Amino acid sequence: MLERFKVPPDIAVKVQEDALRDTVTSVFRKMGLEESDCALGADVMVKADLRGVETHGVSNMLRSYVKGYNEGSINPRPNWKVLRETPATANIDSDRGLGTVIAPKAMEIAIEKAKNVGVGMVTIRNGRHLGMASYHAMMALEHDMIGLCMTSCPPSVLPTFGAEPRMGTNPIALAAPADKEPPFVFDAATSTVAGNKLGLARRLGNDLAGGWVADSDGVPIMDDVPPPVPGYEGKATSFLLPVGSTREMGSHKGYGLACIVDILGGVLSGGGFGMNPGRPNFGHYVAAYSVEAFMDTGEFKRTMDEWIHMLESTKPAKGHDRVLYPGRPEAEEEAKRKVEGIPLHPEVIEWFQDICGELSLPYTLT
Amino acid sequence: MLERFKVPPDIAVKVQEDALRDTVTSVFRKMGLEESDCALGADVMVKADLRGVETHGVSNMLRSYVKGYNEGSINPRPNWKVLRETPATANIDSDRGLGTVIAPKAMEIAIEKAKNVGVGMVTIRNGRHLGMASYHAMMALEHDMIGLCMTSCPPSVLPTFGAEPRMGTNPIALAAPADKEPPFVFDAATSTVAGNKLGLARRLGNDLAGGWVADSDGVPIMDDVPPPVPGYEGKATSFLLPVGSTREMGSHKGYGLACIVDILGGVLSGGGFGMNPGRPNFGHYVAAYSVEAFMDTGEFKRTMDEWIHMLESTKPAKGHDRVLYPGRPEAEEEAKRKVEGIPLHPEVIEWFQDICGELSLPYTLT
Repeated sequence: MLERFKVPPDIAVKVQEDALRDTVTSVFRKMGLEESDCALGADVMVKADLRGVETHGVSNMLRSYVKGYNEGSINPRPNWKVLRETPATANIDSDRGLGTVIAPKAMEIAIEKAKNVGVGMVTIRNGRHLGMASYHAMMALEHDMIGLCMTSCPPSVLPTFGAEPRMGTNPIALAAPADKEPPFVFDAATSTVAGNKLGLARRLGNDLAGGWVADSDGVPIMDDVPPPVPGYEGKATSFLLPVGSTREMGSHKGYGLACIVDILGGVLSGGGFGMNPGRPNFGHYVAAYSVEAFMDTGEFKRTMDEWIHMLESTKPAKGHDRVLYPGRPEAEEEAKRKVEGIPLHPEVIEWFQDICGELSLPYTLT
Repeated sequence: MLERFKVPPDIAVKVQEDALRDTVTSVFRKMGLEESDCALGADVMVKADLRGVETHGVSNMLRSYVKGYNEGSINPRPNWKVLRETPATANIDSDRGLGTVIAPKAMEIAIEKAKNVGVGMVTIRNGRHLGMASYHAMMALEHDMIGLCMTSCPPSVLPTFGAEPRMGTNPIALAAPADKEPPFVFDAATSTVAGNKLGLARRLGNDLAGGWVADSDGVPIMDDVPPPVPGYEGKATSFLLPVGSTREMGSHKGYGLACIVDILGGVLSGGGFGMNPGRPNFGHYVAAYSVEAFMDTGEFKRTMDEWIHMLESTKPAKGHDRVLYPGRPEAEEEAKRKVEGIPLHPEVIEWFQDICGELSLPYTLT
């Protein structure tokens, strides 16, 4: 994660994984979820915080989920069902269930299908926030499968040459098993940064980097700029650019990838896309590919290790000391945080104290 | 396509589609391909030129294919075969056959599998250059399927924080059918620009844009720069950056997407990855998803039209007059070039005159 998104060490409050898991589980219980969903929902969030993916951990998202349950926009006891099915595919109506607890169920279906016919692919309509997309993709790993997850989100990103948001941050996640090395895990918004990073930057009082956002005419701002962005005074935020930032540098690629997520997670779920009035805001897509359906699994995993070593032995660019692969920094962060605890911003600790009070839960984090 | 890549209208020589197709077919015939592969190979190239994808049309690629056949690195009569198969998957050894003629055969297999079980996915090892990836993806459209194609290429792109090329330009293509509108067709390298664009820029004498390449220390060059790039004097080219250009602007996303292509097209084909010494240079991946396996096809296509209208009705950014979706400019260019002819650079016309002479073929292009 970029330095500008880290909680400054001098103010960070470290909490232990188990304590955080217990508190989040208790909050979900108060929201009325089934017991198994409470633990699952907590696992998705804590895993994000362990891996250093603060944007999708407790700091930004739990308060949003609590609000959604309280307002009734998220259904704590969804009657989700498979609407259509073939040997390799399924389409699920999630009945406004939180994506963090429905996507794992869809992924289990995809994995079973991949066991049977080589590939499993499931779209989910009528969904709500997914959490960290790679959580669901990583479920495939223990089955020696490649896992994918995408989600079509509400609009906050400008199309190339556009002055109005039309795309969600529409992340793509893919996890692939290696042998002795940590798995390859890619998980990224198709915008320059995840939408939640703007929230983090505001909390931390940091500038937005050049290339992240546009001005109110849709013109990319290529210098660092403190929030609020000029033209967006008084508004919560400005609008993000697709990765690539400008047409010359390839923003049509980020835009096109966001379109792909809108098609696979949105249109192909039958639930429409984020921009469509009256339609649900999130459509999800998960898939599992059995490695053994293509080649010997052992050879695949050994080749992945070899490929990882090739990448990590790259001569570093001037000013840098190592080349990483997607999944390495997250695995290192997880190992560290399991021992040292998860650093939270004092403002987040305060929120936990407040919500535990409101919900009549004991506060046991610190 | 960016203005800097267009053949200047005042020097362009326009040739008709049929004449170009005939000449390319004849060249492939002289290379010893089976008759049906000659026509297919020509169709892939001419389709690229019709759609304005000059990087993958006759100008850059035909001479490279002729060289490969003459040197023996491309096999004109490959004995390709399916090595492993499940209801949804297959892995093919293409026996050094040109990707432009093998990938369509793999895509036909994927489409048949998708008819049977909802999804078909085929990896291809031991491959050679694929041509325009979206050609293969678009084969799915007439079956009301979503088509995908990726290819793991020889290294020319720096990983984030790296000073040595490790990734190919590793393109991703996805085609999805619409109803009355031209299909959605995304096809883009995961680098800032396609590798062939550097060749085009050299031919046209144009600058490389800021953010496209790095200096010889691996530091991104963020201003426009004429070739050769400083530090690369006397070399054919410098090295490309992943889309996103810098870590702050999201180059780890372009890098990670290139990794995904290396895994799905390379490692999962069993043929290894581009960087691996002694291994074949190209590994391909094609897939087809049946829309009907997820939802009603008519509803999907009508929603695609609605989604396209949503995108194209976006208020344009200052200095621009319209917002496009991937596939629209290519469809417009194809309609125009079918009538007006395909504009080729005089240098390309000269090459055709030379090669026709060398191969004792009549020159009939102009």
